[in-house]
Amino acid sequence: MPRLLIAAAAASMAFTGLATAQDAPFKMEIAARQGIMAYRAIQMGTLGGMAKGEIPYDAAAAQKAADNLLASVTLDASMLWPPGSDNAANPDSTALAAIWAEGSTIGDKAKAMADAATAMQAAAGAGLDPLKAAMGPVGGACGDCHKAFRVPD
Amino acid sequence: MPRLLIAAAAASMAFTGLATAQDAPFKMEIAARQGIMAYRAIQMGTLGGMAKGEIPYDAAAAQKAADNLLASVTLDASMLWPPGSDNAANPDSTALAAIWAEGSTIGDKAKAMADAATAMQAAAGAGLDPLKAAMGPVGGACGDCHKAFRVPD
Repeated sequence: MPRLLIAAAAASMAFTGLATAQDAPFKMEIAARQGIMAYRAIQMGTLGGMAKGEIPYDAAAAQKAADNLLASVTLDASMLWPPGSDNAANPDSTALAAIWAEGSTIGDKAKAMADAATAMQAAAGAGLDPLKAAMGPVGGACGDCHKAFRVPD
Repeated sequence: MPRLLIAAAAASMAFTGLATAQDAPFKMEIAARQGIMAYRAIQMGTLGGMAKGEIPYDAAAAQKAADNLLASVTLDASMLWPPGSDNAANPDSTALAAIWAEGSTIGDKAKAMADAATAMQAAAGAGLDPLKAAMGPVGGACGDCHKAFRVPD
């Protein structure tokens, strides 16, 4: 077997155990986007904990969480949201089909999130008050998008 | 309620429906790391598909996938691997406790993955042959780490 095929086979084998596209519609995309949401939530747990006084403010830790939040927000997710990959296609997803509907505001909401995460990245290491001031827009961006485009609890 | 508390409450509410730390040990961390693995697998699907000739080579698409692979590999995952967050603690994880054992080679394997993804990022847009040449080390890095540190199928 040529070396390339061996490498390709090894790469394929390396992904067994992970979700595959065959398992269920959009399973890989859904797993990836939910994992990235969880990653963001972990960073928000650090930032929100400091904002609420539940975690002592630490400039380096706050900056790291804000850097991570921004990195995860700016990670290219364009391939993770194929049309039709909503809750109706696969109940593992909590995405509403409204995301892809005519006149959807998903682009505006994504931009609001990116802007808020960018502002948080500039503020978080500068002190507890700047961090607190940046929390509102970030929490608002999360909540606005979830309210519009996520299956209600 | 002060605006900050409203923002913090909104942020907390924004994460309902996502896994929470209370659900099961390390559930958020496991979801995040598995999602990032799925994200990498999606990029590898593009790169591997081109290497195997299943997808026509497209320099821009190859470069984008390689950029995304590197971004996901260099995303700070330090908080996603707390000691004890292995398969024995939560069967949703396929991570072996060997990751955290004395003398573990996990650091070397992470570095091999970062080096291979960096090389792929430099190669993927330059042509099909450079992409193919970069596939071996990337597939090898994925497979070596999975073989050593993932629950066998």
